[in-house]
Amino acid sequence: MAKRKQPGTDLEPVAGNGLLHRRMFLRGGAVAGVLGAAGLAQAEPLAVPEWVTKPGKRPQPYTQPSPFEQGVQRLLPDQNPLYEPGSASGRTPHQFLEGMVTPNGLHFEVTHNGVPEIDPARHMLVIHGLVKRPLKFTVDSLLRYPMTSRLHFIECAGNSASLYGSTAVKSSVQQLHGLLSGAEWTGVPLSVLLDEAGIDPKAKWVYAEGGDASSVTRSIPLAKCMDDVLVALYQNGERLRPNNGYPVRLLVPGFQGNMNIKWLRRLRLTEGPMQTRYETSRYSLLLADGKTAQFKLQLDAKSIITRPSPGYQMQGPGLYEISGLAWSGNGTVKQVEVSADGGKSWAVAALSGPVLPKMLTRFRAPWKWDGGPAVLQSRVTDDTGYVQPTRDALIAARGNKANYHYNGITTWNVANGGEVTHVYA
Amino acid sequence: MAKRKQPGTDLEPVAGNGLLHRRMFLRGGAVAGVLGAAGLAQAEPLAVPEWVTKPGKRPQPYTQPSPFEQGVQRLLPDQNPLYEPGSASGRTPHQFLEGMVTPNGLHFEVTHNGVPEIDPARHMLVIHGLVKRPLKFTVDSLLRYPMTSRLHFIECAGNSASLYGSTAVKSSVQQLHGLLSGAEWTGVPLSVLLDEAGIDPKAKWVYAEGGDASSVTRSIPLAKCMDDVLVALYQNGERLRPNNGYPVRLLVPGFQGNMNIKWLRRLRLTEGPMQTRYETSRYSLLLADGKTAQFKLQLDAKSIITRPSPGYQMQGPGLYEISGLAWSGNGTVKQVEVSADGGKSWAVAALSGPVLPKMLTRFRAPWKWDGGPAVLQSRVTDDTGYVQPTRDALIAARGNKANYHYNGITTWNVANGGEVTHVYA
Repeated sequence: MAKRKQPGTDLEPVAGNGLLHRRMFLRGGAVAGVLGAAGLAQAEPLAVPEWVTKPGKRPQPYTQPSPFEQGVQRLLPDQNPLYEPGSASGRTPHQFLEGMVTPNGLHFEVTHNGVPEIDPARHMLVIHGLVKRPLKFTVDSLLRYPMTSRLHFIECAGNSASLYGSTAVKSSVQQLHGLLSGAEWTGVPLSVLLDEAGIDPKAKWVYAEGGDASSVTRSIPLAKCMDDVLVALYQNGERLRPNNGYPVRLLVPGFQGNMNIKWLRRLRLTEGPMQTRYETSRYSLLLADGKTAQFKLQLDAKSIITRPSPGYQMQGPGLYEISGLAWSGNGTVKQVEVSADGGKSWAVAALSGPVLPKMLTRFRAPWKWDGGPAVLQSRVTDDTGYVQPTRDALIAARGNKANYHYNGITTWNVANGGEVTHVYA
Repeated sequence: MAKRKQPGTDLEPVAGNGLLHRRMFLRGGAVAGVLGAAGLAQAEPLAVPEWVTKPGKRPQPYTQPSPFEQGVQRLLPDQNPLYEPGSASGRTPHQFLEGMVTPNGLHFEVTHNGVPEIDPARHMLVIHGLVKRPLKFTVDSLLRYPMTSRLHFIECAGNSASLYGSTAVKSSVQQLHGLLSGAEWTGVPLSVLLDEAGIDPKAKWVYAEGGDASSVTRSIPLAKCMDDVLVALYQNGERLRPNNGYPVRLLVPGFQGNMNIKWLRRLRLTEGPMQTRYETSRYSLLLADGKTAQFKLQLDAKSIITRPSPGYQMQGPGLYEISGLAWSGNGTVKQVEVSADGGKSWAVAALSGPVLPKMLTRFRAPWKWDGGPAVLQSRVTDDTGYVQPTRDALIAARGNKANYHYNGITTWNVANGGEVTHVYA
């Protein structure tokens, strides 16, 4: 009886247009001769560049990336994209990054009146409103409290918004989806501080206010605050950077980015939401009838392919690794599928663990590109069973006026010859 | 019948000198009035500092820490600590950090002839020796290969070496234990590249050589290389920094730091170890009889308390959170215990998940300091059952000439009034 063939062992596709089994790369010898290495006629002597013969530089107190990587930067707006005084952003260059952690220097930001430079010795956080005992905290006093560390993504509600438009913007994954980052956050569970203040049973919401010149204010359900919200002080080990809320910000896992109030200075417990500017005229999902779906706060499951993506130089037919990010504001990534034929067929991608709730998950899939046209897509399913919708399905459900919470599938077209562009499919 | 009291519910110690139950902080209201918050007589109006009234700064392409955090730096040597031309180090300031990820700017380094500034377009990696097909790789070709992301610590074999000395050095956790960091690494599994080269059955070791001006060379067992070694290209999402091996380094999880060869340019498969300078005169554990224990490569389980630690300002009697790091080169942290009475009694610390193999684990324990003398220690047990030894036990086993692999317990003395110093106990 013939031995049953394992899928993908012979570079046999598991889905259309060259997608291979996700475990193909783990099999011994599978990549021999199909990738970028060159045979070596003569091993010795190795080339001796000048850095092998001359002493290098002294260590620095705080290191920086290589000068050869200076093109890896956040994308800043040429103009004011939101047509409002002072609003600006810095977008994470996901086309150049790997793994699930965004380095602090490249974490995205959105600000509405610039980045304040706050003296931590003068910053205060106040908890008041429907509490038994109003409290004020210096930053030093917050640093005395018990802390928790967790890895979480933050995504702006307006990330990917251009995909609601009728024309596919020919731009990079950074421009389209760069208002998204992931980091390890350490801070005090907000529940500890609210318990200390003593919650009045009438309180159902928490109004949070930032201490910058735009004073972003949002109402957050008290139940969420008592669940997994952090008063964050550290980001990837070190104290928050100014553009990420130094000295103290809220971390509201899985909710719209703007609710993770930076430069946090006030938490006021209230009976109902405060209907602030940032939750009425802004950051509310516009529906087809001109009304808004207010307080849709969680970010639904979403995924993007970061490599190849627009700007990537395909180097001729052969084996490639498709790499991307998936996440869900409602839980944990369960599965990511990748298509090379515009969604006609799908291959299951490998996930790089640990797969964590409300955190970016890196996925990867091997792909044998034949040099011809291909249409790349990714689709995530989270542990609630929710499946990332197509762009058409999302727009059909929301109408044509929607502006936030775009989480439909993104499509990269690979042309004959290898140019990668953003298209609708 | 009386209800059984939960441990720690009433700030009741679970170990001597004020150590409380690790879950105490999670109980509603437990910290009320015992920490740093101040009652607020009048909530409104909040103070209005200038950063609330004046626009802040524009976003930057690559952000930096707050100017108020400029004291958080790596510790550089005043003199050349190893008495060799060009050797230098930068130590991670663990007294100021939290969580398990070390930010890239503060990752430790040891260099033996400076930090080379390598042009990635000219760097090559060669695999040769006992292989069927010698290979050479450009950096661009390595970037085509399948990648894996994992979080791992790196620790220098000489980290904490001063604790072998007869006098407790009065210094910081950074000076004593700062040759240790943790990060998310992304790269190509070395097994994939070795499979492509085709391993000659006679090969049992891999000789790895760095491309800087000191050409650090080490022999690594082939079995380890086929297990979990990465040819790493990315650190916390972005490409490696020059001091961490840009453009390509080895990542040899759980083994001595120096074996994670930076600026990797050669891998040569051999029958036996090469007995290089860096594995004979250096980085070998000196025994009592003057011989060395060669090729003791794995770093055994170890833990340190980072807060409070020398330099920390205790702010009077009250509740504190003891915070620290634990790790094992042999596996995963299973349990960390903390003592406030010099090891007479122990309380189990809480671990901040995810707890990952061969990665730093953050532990925390609540402590009610009475303002009097205390002797703080931590002790880790890993999933092999290994328990971190006392300093006395370690020195008794190794003799008085040992210089590397110090993993005994570290002791911080808290004096009347709150000064924290390093002592032997």
